[in-house]
Amino acid sequence: MTDHTPVTELTTEACWELLHEQELGRLAFHLADEVHLVPVNYAVDHDRRLVLRTAEGSTLLGLTMDADVAFEVDEVTDDVARSVVIRGRAHELHGAEADAVDQLPLRPWVDGVRSTVVAIEVDELSGRRFVLHRPWLHLRQNPPV
Amino acid sequence: MTDHTPVTELTTEACWELLHEQELGRLAFHLADEVHLVPVNYAVDHDRRLVLRTAEGSTLLGLTMDADVAFEVDEVTDDVARSVVIRGRAHELHGAEADAVDQLPLRPWVDGVRSTVVAIEVDELSGRRFVLHRPWLHLRQNPPV
Repeated sequence: MTDHTPVTELTTEACWELLHEQELGRLAFHLADEVHLVPVNYAVDHDRRLVLRTAEGSTLLGLTMDADVAFEVDEVTDDVARSVVIRGRAHELHGAEADAVDQLPLRPWVDGVRSTVVAIEVDELSGRRFVLHRPWLHLRQNPPV
Repeated sequence: MTDHTPVTELTTEACWELLHEQELGRLAFHLADEVHLVPVNYAVDHDRRLVLRTAEGSTLLGLTMDADVAFEVDEVTDDVARSVVIRGRAHELHGAEADAVDQLPLRPWVDGVRSTVVAIEVDELSGRRFVLHRPWLHLRQNPPV
């Protein structure tokens, strides 16, 4: 049976399920007094942290200056959208901890050196499921003649 | 001819094209000393601002306390991902400016009162196109037996 309630909170387990299913998320971080946002590949590790790889650059600089981050993944179909938002703290992984990430399904989508491994410890996790009302979608598929 | 260059910068026009095509983005904003991130429906107005509706709550509080925001949209297919990131300033629209938003294709995906209209003035706009190397995707579609 389909649940037609407009907005429902996802359970913690349903949030983790979506985090495991997806591989592209968006990372929001401070850079000095600005907020920045980048798309990132990520994986979930065995301790239920997020891990990602980054190159030297403004993302790593921002995370080093201020560990406070937010992270989002979503999935949108014609009828339903699910979105999970995390608030947490980022820190670099080194040595054996960084090496262990090689065993996770964290593969770069693009070539290029991204040698720094970053973990995001999850402090807050919430997710919502939206039943979509998009009556104009059929107009795109079947434009009026 | 398909461009196989791993990462290419999108032109400004290509960025606006993606912004026009999409209707769900992610808004990153300050809330006191924290960074927050929410999925939002948006539209592009005639002055090339983004407009969105929000209810009273932590998003509006955050935007009122600090106008500095970042915004992202993306589109991912099997072979190529495109992502556009904006940095800008948010402010509430009132009166005729808010009423004019009724003429834009900004429709709520979900029922509920979202009476506040917010515009995001674009200060920085950048986009990238990634050619994806995801050799494991076929494993998901055709799991090994």
